[in-house]
Amino acid sequence: MTYRAPVRDIAFALEAIAGIDNVAATGAFPDYDTDVASAIIEAAGQFSQEVLAPLNRVGDLNPATISDGNVTASPGFADAYKQFAEGGWTSLTASVEAGGQALPKALELAAYETVHAANMAFGLCPMLSLASIEALEAVGTDYQREVYLPKLVSGEWTGAMVLTEPSAGSDLGALVATATPTADGKYLLNGQKIFITWGDHDATDNIVHLVLARLPDAPAGPKGISLFLASKFHLDADGNPTSHRNSFHPVGLEHKLGIHASPTCVMQYENAVAELVGRPNEGLAHMFVMMNAARLAVGVEGVGIAERAYQHALAYALERRQGTSIWTGQRNAPLFDLPDVRRMLVVMKSKIAAARAICFSTGVAADMARHAATEEERKIWKGREDLFTPIAKAWSTDVGCEVASLGVQVHGGMGFIEETGAAQYYRDARITPIYEGTNGIQAMDLVGRKLSMDSGESAKRLIEDMKVTLHQLASLYSGKPVERFANAIESVEDATLWLLDAKADKDRAADVLAGADSYLKLLGDVVGGWMLAKGALAAKAKLDANDGDAAWLQGKLDLYEAYAANVLGHVSSRLAGVGQGGDLLHRLTLEALAG
Amino acid sequence: MTYRAPVRDIAFALEAIAGIDNVAATGAFPDYDTDVASAIIEAAGQFSQEVLAPLNRVGDLNPATISDGNVTASPGFADAYKQFAEGGWTSLTASVEAGGQALPKALELAAYETVHAANMAFGLCPMLSLASIEALEAVGTDYQREVYLPKLVSGEWTGAMVLTEPSAGSDLGALVATATPTADGKYLLNGQKIFITWGDHDATDNIVHLVLARLPDAPAGPKGISLFLASKFHLDADGNPTSHRNSFHPVGLEHKLGIHASPTCVMQYENAVAELVGRPNEGLAHMFVMMNAARLAVGVEGVGIAERAYQHALAYALERRQGTSIWTGQRNAPLFDLPDVRRMLVVMKSKIAAARAICFSTGVAADMARHAATEEERKIWKGREDLFTPIAKAWSTDVGCEVASLGVQVHGGMGFIEETGAAQYYRDARITPIYEGTNGIQAMDLVGRKLSMDSGESAKRLIEDMKVTLHQLASLYSGKPVERFANAIESVEDATLWLLDAKADKDRAADVLAGADSYLKLLGDVVGGWMLAKGALAAKAKLDANDGDAAWLQGKLDLYEAYAANVLGHVSSRLAGVGQGGDLLHRLTLEALAG
Repeated sequence: MTYRAPVRDIAFALEAIAGIDNVAATGAFPDYDTDVASAIIEAAGQFSQEVLAPLNRVGDLNPATISDGNVTASPGFADAYKQFAEGGWTSLTASVEAGGQALPKALELAAYETVHAANMAFGLCPMLSLASIEALEAVGTDYQREVYLPKLVSGEWTGAMVLTEPSAGSDLGALVATATPTADGKYLLNGQKIFITWGDHDATDNIVHLVLARLPDAPAGPKGISLFLASKFHLDADGNPTSHRNSFHPVGLEHKLGIHASPTCVMQYENAVAELVGRPNEGLAHMFVMMNAARLAVGVEGVGIAERAYQHALAYALERRQGTSIWTGQRNAPLFDLPDVRRMLVVMKSKIAAARAICFSTGVAADMARHAATEEERKIWKGREDLFTPIAKAWSTDVGCEVASLGVQVHGGMGFIEETGAAQYYRDARITPIYEGTNGIQAMDLVGRKLSMDSGESAKRLIEDMKVTLHQLASLYSGKPVERFANAIESVEDATLWLLDAKADKDRAADVLAGADSYLKLLGDVVGGWMLAKGALAAKAKLDANDGDAAWLQGKLDLYEAYAANVLGHVSSRLAGVGQGGDLLHRLTLEALAG
Repeated sequence: MTYRAPVRDIAFALEAIAGIDNVAATGAFPDYDTDVASAIIEAAGQFSQEVLAPLNRVGDLNPATISDGNVTASPGFADAYKQFAEGGWTSLTASVEAGGQALPKALELAAYETVHAANMAFGLCPMLSLASIEALEAVGTDYQREVYLPKLVSGEWTGAMVLTEPSAGSDLGALVATATPTADGKYLLNGQKIFITWGDHDATDNIVHLVLARLPDAPAGPKGISLFLASKFHLDADGNPTSHRNSFHPVGLEHKLGIHASPTCVMQYENAVAELVGRPNEGLAHMFVMMNAARLAVGVEGVGIAERAYQHALAYALERRQGTSIWTGQRNAPLFDLPDVRRMLVVMKSKIAAARAICFSTGVAADMARHAATEEERKIWKGREDLFTPIAKAWSTDVGCEVASLGVQVHGGMGFIEETGAAQYYRDARITPIYEGTNGIQAMDLVGRKLSMDSGESAKRLIEDMKVTLHQLASLYSGKPVERFANAIESVEDATLWLLDAKADKDRAADVLAGADSYLKLLGDVVGGWMLAKGALAAKAKLDANDGDAAWLQGKLDLYEAYAANVLGHVSSRLAGVGQGGDLLHRLTLEALAG
């Protein structure tokens, strides 16, 4: 089964739903227009199909290896990475000064969807470089911006995010790695870090580590963490890597359920020479620049792996014949003609379309938060970006896992056989709800920070925007497809007010946290419906204007309707979950839960 | 992490919810009483903990192997199987004549939950023997009952179900293996069969294959299939295996996502000598005796693997410390004190309890269908067994996968590391919604055969029974926990009437099939709630009588409430899905679904 980049769907999500024309209209991207976007999506898709997709199973079967403190990437990966960098795929959004193409972030996400779909383990490598680039553009010193940034942007070097320690995972405030100042203004890093994705490899001749550690005089907890940069090889005066290796090394690779070709390193720092990035003790805030970019990127991974699983399942459903079609009466009909199989494929397709549009919309919001004309507008867009980031991450990755599981199911017994390939997506996808902040952390971020940062203003604005679409929807459908969206918006409204109310009362903090997961899922389900509704409206306009493939456009209308029937009804369950309260959970003690 | 059999929960589900006392009251099981039940659950649990659980990861890392047409089981499995058979675990329900203990099926399911939890790959071997025993008890010849049955019951030999072919999976009517009569009243089997679980191994000195094939004069399709028995080794006149091997062999083992220690064989039959079992051309009906037993057993696998995953996650949540407890203010508190982690554990626990009670209730119904006093009663219980079997299979295995996935999630990053063990449950569980009839097949069976076999009488009786519990529930709770159950029952009623109505109209066959999955999920969600509600009522009675561990009993009341908040609200979504209609799916053609 070959992956085929869904360029038409991607462009539709970017233009007709996420509204990337708003970004173009800011004038901040003089090199951007619709033709450029199409060309980039097309070219990215082609590269992903032709170079990355064929390596996907190779990497699964031949994980990265470690020997003598050096990691060797899976066969073919180093060469593919070189082609990838040469193709300019690491420089799409970076500034022109750093050698980048200064294109919108939303477009980069679109291009990367195809990369992650083709080869998720590969995609992680440039994904973390992009996050490093964002951090250095934001808070790097002049030297760092001159020396490291261009090499990261060109892809000659890669970047790694170095956060987690054995006793500091979700709670980074607990980390203990140290940074000791030296006489010449540098620092010596000491400590062990785990789960370092692509922390070492042989695909480039240098790797830049962005490492969280504590200064000697740092306060305890999250406010005593600083960000450092350590280069795998020491540089000469011209900024080129020498043969002298810095004193940090991978000491082990994890054996993982999936993404076998992505080396997950245990890294040991022993007086590794490093530079401070940004301000002392503000490392966590600086790292959040990277984290937010990475979170959205992980959401796109969810979309990509889901799309790959969907295509695989669809191909099987068309090829495998069994039974008689209830629609056509054809004997020995393809599985595609079994209503329950069709239903699974339709649910997969509609959830992918919703997740894709949510992620791209978050990208548009990020672009607008930087480049909209007025400060007021930028603030509004920033609120949208902040609100959507945990949804894009968590909801899309849940979709990734669910769709990959449905993909296995469509295959029946063959789905459980590794050679079929469906099982790999199921394994690979499972990491996405975990890393870059588990989906539980995302939910807490949403109801904690994101909902109260502006007293719920961004959430309320979202609700108003959805109501506008609801009114327009009556021009396309009558009855249930409209009622279901109306009901869904009302549930979001109820849940949001309930949470804001609970948040105002300190004694109800556990109530808020108990409902966090349900609230995120509620918002995801409903915003996903909103995305498809906007898609349906855009498709109808194109249909009326005779602009495009009618069957495909009509499909966008039907997909919303199928989503409304299969997903929007979840709201009553989510709403109940939001309000379940912390007391009930607290009562369920270990004694109560024992077998 | 060691598995600990949840004997108290198992006994509670069997006695207080599933009502195994009804079975005892029939007088058909003179050797059964509550003490016997307790002793058997306890002993099974101990064997599973001590012998089977330690082999679980061994088998995952060292799959069964094949060489020269012989399969060798994973290290330690053959010896464990011998101990298992010697312990009498293969003979619990078989008739006394066949050497069995003639105990209730529901009790056997309870014992086997611990086997599947401890080692799902191992449990499949005796599970398929039990299904073979049921078939031979039902339709075997005198010779077969004398020669094969006692060896299967004693566990000296194992049985295999041999159904699937490369072009005949869910649609067995398409199978092409042939059986040619010989002059001496036997048959020669020819053909290739795939997905034959434990089709060959070295744990016993003979294996009995029950094989579906076609007689020369058989009609095409499902009505031309007969059931045959082929012994791995030819028997001598005393019925003991000789050294002459029958001419069928494993020719390959599948590389699977999970259950690595369960050899999944490709079997080749080349003039294999076989006997007819039951009547010619009625093989599919005979096989359904095995299939129904196996389907319920797979449901119990779902419960077992979920319980194992839950225990693993709970242990991690108690051991791993991070952050401050919002409830106790404790710093460096266990994950267990994070509301979102507690919520996950509570959802896991409550769904396991619901699925367990559904499976055991199906077992009780099966026992009563055979042994209730009057024919009228037996018919009613048979209706309940038939209605519940697809729910027990599909809903419980969905729970198995969901809980195993939550188990990974509770572990955070560690969950993705294979050494942790959580990932194995996630991989192993994934087969259960697929084999013994995919969950889609179960849903079609439910809305197709099961709902109409008695014009919906069994479904309506279920609704009435649930309403009785609803009225009692008002003595325990007020407000939402009661409203949610009332609303849920109403949804089942609406959906059932809608389906019966649609089924009466031939033109609406696709509507029925389009809603099948949602209907099964709806029924599972609501019946699961009913089970927990019955558990809450029983626990309250025990609390009032001061009979048992108060914290644990109070937990049963709280678990129902948590389930009501987190699961029962799904009904509005399921209801929408039931009524989505086939037209919408039919409209979503390949052109509409293209990227």
